[in-house]
Amino acid sequence: MKIAVVGLGYWGPNLVRNFSASDRVSDVLCCDLDRERVKKLVVKFPHVQAVDSFDEILASNCDAVGIATPISQHHSMGMRVLRHGKHLLVEKPMAISSRECEELVRCAEDHKRVLMVDHTFLYTGAVRKMKDIIERGDVGDIYYFDSVRVNLGLFQHDVNVIWDLAPHDLSIMDFMLAQKPVAVSAVGVNHYDHMEDMAYLALHFEGKMMAHVHVNWLAPVKIRRILIGGSKKMIVYDDMEPSEKVKVYDSGVKVVTREGIYKTLVEYRTGDMFAPKLDQSEALGLVVKDFLDAIELGRKPVADGETGLRIVRILEAAELSVKKGGAKVHLQ
Amino acid sequence: MKIAVVGLGYWGPNLVRNFSASDRVSDVLCCDLDRERVKKLVVKFPHVQAVDSFDEILASNCDAVGIATPISQHHSMGMRVLRHGKHLLVEKPMAISSRECEELVRCAEDHKRVLMVDHTFLYTGAVRKMKDIIERGDVGDIYYFDSVRVNLGLFQHDVNVIWDLAPHDLSIMDFMLAQKPVAVSAVGVNHYDHMEDMAYLALHFEGKMMAHVHVNWLAPVKIRRILIGGSKKMIVYDDMEPSEKVKVYDSGVKVVTREGIYKTLVEYRTGDMFAPKLDQSEALGLVVKDFLDAIELGRKPVADGETGLRIVRILEAAELSVKKGGAKVHLQ
Amino acid sequence: MKIAVVGLGYWGPNLVRNFSASDRVSDVLCCDLDRERVKKLVVKFPHVQAVDSFDEILASNCDAVGIATPISQHHSMGMRVLRHGKHLLVEKPMAISSRECEELVRCAEDHKRVLMVDHTFLYTGAVRKMKDIIERGDVGDIYYFDSVRVNLGLFQHDVNVIWDLAPHDLSIMDFMLAQKPVAVSAVGVNHYDHMEDMAYLALHFEGKMMAHVHVNWLAPVKIRRILIGGSKKMIVYDDMEPSEKVKVYDSGVKVVTREGIYKTLVEYRTGDMFAPKLDQSEALGLVVKDFLDAIELGRKPVADGETGLRIVRILEAAELSVKKGGAKVHLQ
Amino acid sequence: MKIAVVGLGYWGPNLVRNFSASDRVSDVLCCDLDRERVKKLVVKFPHVQAVDSFDEILASNCDAVGIATPISQHHSMGMRVLRHGKHLLVEKPMAISSRECEELVRCAEDHKRVLMVDHTFLYTGAVRKMKDIIERGDVGDIYYFDSVRVNLGLFQHDVNVIWDLAPHDLSIMDFMLAQKPVAVSAVGVNHYDHMEDMAYLALHFEGKMMAHVHVNWLAPVKIRRILIGGSKKMIVYDDMEPSEKVKVYDSGVKVVTREGIYKTLVEYRTGDMFAPKLDQSEALGLVVKDFLDAIELGRKPVADGETGLRIVRILEAAELSVKKGGAKVHLQ
Repeated sequence: MKIAVVGLGYWGPNLVRNFSASDRVSDVLCCDLDRERVKKLVVKFPHVQAVDSFDEILASNCDAVGIATPISQHHSMGMRVLRHGKHLLVEKPMAISSRECEELVRCAEDHKRVLMVDHTFLYTGAVRKMKDIIERGDVGDIYYFDSVRVNLGLFQHDVNVIWDLAPHDLSIMDFMLAQKPVAVSAVGVNHYDHMEDMAYLALHFEGKMMAHVHVNWLAPVKIRRILIGGSKKMIVYDDMEPSEKVKVYDSGVKVVTREGIYKTLVEYRTGDMFAPKLDQSEALGLVVKDFLDAIELGRKPVADGETGLRIVRILEAAELSVKKGGAKVHLQ
Repeated sequence: MKIAVVGLGYWGPNLVRNFSASDRVSDVLCCDLDRERVKKLVVKFPHVQAVDSFDEILASNCDAVGIATPISQHHSMGMRVLRHGKHLLVEKPMAISSRECEELVRCAEDHKRVLMVDHTFLYTGAVRKMKDIIERGDVGDIYYFDSVRVNLGLFQHDVNVIWDLAPHDLSIMDFMLAQKPVAVSAVGVNHYDHMEDMAYLALHFEGKMMAHVHVNWLAPVKIRRILIGGSKKMIVYDDMEPSEKVKVYDSGVKVVTREGIYKTLVEYRTGDMFAPKLDQSEALGLVVKDFLDAIELGRKPVADGETGLRIVRILEAAELSVKKGGAKVHLQ
Repeated sequence: MKIAVVGLGYWGPNLVRNFSASDRVSDVLCCDLDRERVKKLVVKFPHVQAVDSFDEILASNCDAVGIATPISQHHSMGMRVLRHGKHLLVEKPMAISSRECEELVRCAEDHKRVLMVDHTFLYTGAVRKMKDIIERGDVGDIYYFDSVRVNLGLFQHDVNVIWDLAPHDLSIMDFMLAQKPVAVSAVGVNHYDHMEDMAYLALHFEGKMMAHVHVNWLAPVKIRRILIGGSKKMIVYDDMEPSEKVKVYDSGVKVVTREGIYKTLVEYRTGDMFAPKLDQSEALGLVVKDFLDAIELGRKPVADGETGLRIVRILEAAELSVKKGGAKVHLQ
Repeated sequence: MKIAVVGLGYWGPNLVRNFSASDRVSDVLCCDLDRERVKKLVVKFPHVQAVDSFDEILASNCDAVGIATPISQHHSMGMRVLRHGKHLLVEKPMAISSRECEELVRCAEDHKRVLMVDHTFLYTGAVRKMKDIIERGDVGDIYYFDSVRVNLGLFQHDVNVIWDLAPHDLSIMDFMLAQKPVAVSAVGVNHYDHMEDMAYLALHFEGKMMAHVHVNWLAPVKIRRILIGGSKKMIVYDDMEPSEKVKVYDSGVKVVTREGIYKTLVEYRTGDMFAPKLDQSEALGLVVKDFLDAIELGRKPVADGETGLRIVRILEAAELSVKKGGAKVHLQ
């Protein structure tokens, strides 16, 4: 297959590297408006073929295109890729609005092309292992999903902290939980006449489940921790741990009924802890593999357009909720 | 002075121990409806004088009374204590409603008695040190206060997780920050046909400050961490650390303006970290000392009735917000 | 049973508390040369009967005596206890020389009395669990035992850091490993014209096993960590962890032989990690239980006189090795 | 300058990358007996000029040569480099014996060429910062240097764990401490009919200083921790910490003399902790810079031949001590 990568900023070169490493990819094309970036890339990957413009890529005989440009361009570039009959891998978040995402999904269907969003985290050994554990029922009913993703971060110019960081947490949540949220309420603040630099997202579900995400560019320490509480077991996923990122606790509460006591008693219960070995493969390599498989086998990738759309719907709703001072915004 | 302690459950015996250790206290009286508790206490503290009822304590010539009974009784017992002309130390939270708290405050004023709420955390070495650091301006403008207090906890029967755990975080916040919140929005869930066992409280302020508290009885690990972000420095207070509970980071962001660039650039900045030595004195000993000082000197203690009232106002508003599905509730 | 405790310094009151809590103990006697200590104890434990001298205890009808005096007195007092036909629980280390320990062992045999050394660590949930894991063969052949026990410690006046701290590590090692060391080499330094304040002990075994202990009163942080390497699994025991003190790693090396390669290849292998739930019972309570059981059932306790003797032999040899500049000293 | 790199295994490509990045280096040559390695390197660094043999490099007009071949070849190749009038950067450890090192040092002097050993750790921000702190006297008299470097490691075929890992610890110690060791005693074991896979090195000094190094390929967790104790302050350097690798504790002991007490009392003292900001520059970049500076300015680099020789003398003595069962081996 022949693959093109558009946009060679922070992430694009990683796409180039992983596509180059696949023996199913014969040629890699690339382009960027910034000629310096192109030059640097070609020094590092001399076999990559640099072209002058996105139009040249569209005109080429490449099979698929990876879009790693600023989010505002995802929709327009992605639509042109699909309309030219090429498969599309687009960086996360998928686009700046759910309407744009819906158009991309529809366009991919119409042209029978693969549409994938690069939610890389879904392909990490840690997240795949947790998904396994949850799916085989070890955790029981899910009670909550709580994610904290904070550090002293680079302020982005085109997106606030919600659009920058929360796609990670929301895509992991979406992947992990069968149930989908029905509403969002979010609060956030900006401290530099700028985009929000910290925010809290509460996700409401039918029933007794809830999810919460704290994203923050202004924290002195780096925390990347997800807690998942269930009726049988509980999981702590600490991405800052060098090893043992996922810990499964055989802990929880038990409901006790004692003779003569009419009230329900809830007691806590602690047991063993277990840290499964995790696959150390580079997640982006598996993203590329899933994309190429989807193209070859005519099936959907794990992180398909519908997934990307669901994440953007939540981001959009969260941003609206922040503007409304934290009011609950329903997801359709 | 002669002091009485009412209620000898989990916390009462600690009050007895600390009052007994003060050389300003000549006699300690105590009572509890549960005779077994009284017996056990007297074995451990043979000098303590057990009496049969609260009425006896009111009728005694004791100067002050510590109330460590369930929260629903704080108001009625506290009012009787004050009306009998005795000083009052009441466990946190102060009472079950702001109205009850206001009556206690007014009653104490009318009878010119000391009214103190046992917000023990305000007297820890860690919290006092952070207060010092903030007050001398090292942190600059406060951007946010973020607290996480989660563990696998004993389910309480009379209060939900907000009333059980959040008084700690809210009292620390109230003590640390000159500015007071103007509204609260909170979400919470109960998983056992019971009180809420997890909740998230967002506290809104005038201007660009915000605070957030996560309390949870269903977490597999114990986290007790407060982040305080400021324009100059940032603080991490991790109460689970055996030493170095408070870390002050000379980190933050700086606003950069470069020639030819019209947009504001915000860059992050990291510097040294500093973990000050903390006073290791038992906080409850300092609570007792402040209470006795306040009585002797006729001044207010740090954790006075107004403080306790402010905390209860927030708890009350948070609970209302949870009931309203997270709607913003204004604090008067 | 009637039990006496002699010596009410740091540890003696804990013995008193645990003997008092046993329903098999009807009376607890105690004495100390320091009258203040006796007074304080009796305030705290009013049911305890204070006597004026060790002679009175020997003359009393008590069944057993716990000795918690300075180590130099263990032998002479212990001998008198045994000769008076009473059972003996003596603090660790058992005595100041192997000769003294041997006399105590012989004397206990002659008088058919229980002789136990208070190696409390052997009764902790963590150490018992590790012993179980090793005994059921999960760890395979033991390759090494490595212990670090360092902190900023109180300098003792009668013993150096080896005699103060290493009994913990050596007793755990002795308990865990079927094989016993055949020689010791140790190095140590004193920095204050005093006893050694830091030391390293290397323990030599027949075959390919080895053990090592680092004890230090001059470390800025508290480390209490034991690594146990085996042919199948490996254990990390970190006593500073609030929970998950024991972690069992399904990691190790595997020997690979590949066609055409004549050299043995050794590759590492990593697997799951498992942190078993640990019994949280107070270890000293189990010490007391084992002592009372041994008396009642006429059997040896886990930490018997032979155990205490083996530990003292190593301490003695280690001290001699330090004096000889690290020369290897054989254990008979 | 024109630089050649010989040996393109694990470390050689890093040398190539760093030499390439220097604007003082016009050309980089390289060679390796394994043609596949050369091919892979040239794909990654297309500007690098591959040559067929070491002889070609010696015959070329290059100014300096970096040797990253197995340690057994360091001496013979290094001697030829120097005799051809080229400057020499050799991987650590410098050679397989002190005699070989001495010849290299003498040869470099005779030919007035720079001789540098790639003790990369000396150029890390952490080690340079600790050196600063010690040199300005903050730590006071050094009491000890204790290093633990253990993990589940790749078994090397040509060297045991001492020669593989201890050069790091010993070079840091050599760099940090003005005083040099006078003797070594070491114990080690091999578990796979192979080289030693774990070892403990005790380093003896004149006076009351001591150092100790624990290296181990068979540990289930990765520990990289150095403790430095001093009369005024103490340092913990934990290389596994993502940030705050160096912590300086204002802790220690104080000697107290109280009236009426004839014995010296030693009490411990704890104070603030401070984690200085560390330079994040790539250490190998600074190695290359120091090497090029030394060539241009005609001065010695920090990690000069004498440094490399001192380290090898200790390694050699340690190995001999292991063979002699831990006997003390004097360093000349």
